[in-house]
Amino acid sequence: MIKKLHHIAVVVTNLDDALAMYDKLFGLKPTKVATVPAQGVKAALLPIGQTEIELLEPIDPNSGVAKFLAKQGEGMHHICLETDDVAADLNTLGDKGVALIDKTPRMGLAGKVGFMHPKSTKGVLIELATPVNEH
Amino acid sequence: MIKKLHHIAVVVTNLDDALAMYDKLFGLKPTKVATVPAQGVKAALLPIGQTEIELLEPIDPNSGVAKFLAKQGEGMHHICLETDDVAADLNTLGDKGVALIDKTPRMGLAGKVGFMHPKSTKGVLIELATPVNEH
Repeated sequence: MIKKLHHIAVVVTNLDDALAMYDKLFGLKPTKVATVPAQGVKAALLPIGQTEIELLEPIDPNSGVAKFLAKQGEGMHHICLETDDVAADLNTLGDKGVALIDKTPRMGLAGKVGFMHPKSTKGVLIELATPVNEH
Repeated sequence: MIKKLHHIAVVVTNLDDALAMYDKLFGLKPTKVATVPAQGVKAALLPIGQTEIELLEPIDPNSGVAKFLAKQGEGMHHICLETDDVAADLNTLGDKGVALIDKTPRMGLAGKVGFMHPKSTKGVLIELATPVNEH
């Protein structure tokens, strides 16, 4: 079911500052920088081997990412596991009693995605994602 | 300098419970379970593709991991980036003004390792590691 770690997501105050830091210290450069109004974030993807660091800067004070930043400060936000069929997996996880934030997939940066509540996953916010081919 | 994301580390209250959860929900099974007295933890490694989830249960109440758990509860603790030469990289990072927890490498679960202070890395505790061949 799980193919790989698709990405780890990190919340930052300022995306440009964070990109400069990851480049200066580690030589990591983004392959994609985008504003995602539906999620209230500016985002950048930094590939490392077969996974990515996803940097998220909130642009909407009512977004979940903005609330996380206000409460906890900058830091790790969630991990994303890649799967072939996120819809089927969310069904299976629901049947196993997992608290789901998304009972059915929605479109996200990583493709079709769904989140589980960290109370079911030992404090880690976990996203499942099935990438969608870009045509 | 950075070859891949070596692992992400997650602090848990009870390693056996956490291993049961990752197996039940995601089919992830550990390749290694070990007690590391020097770090005050029981640890398990769960491979996902070319990276790993490292689960850490504190066994020493004075360890950093125990203090993290007491303060923040279960959750993501750090990420580890693999590099060919952690000693050289720590020197370079120190020269760039990065606050280093380890100025020179020490032996850790992932090989020769060194940590940077999250105040220099936008709130993310980052470990560098150069694996050591096991003979």
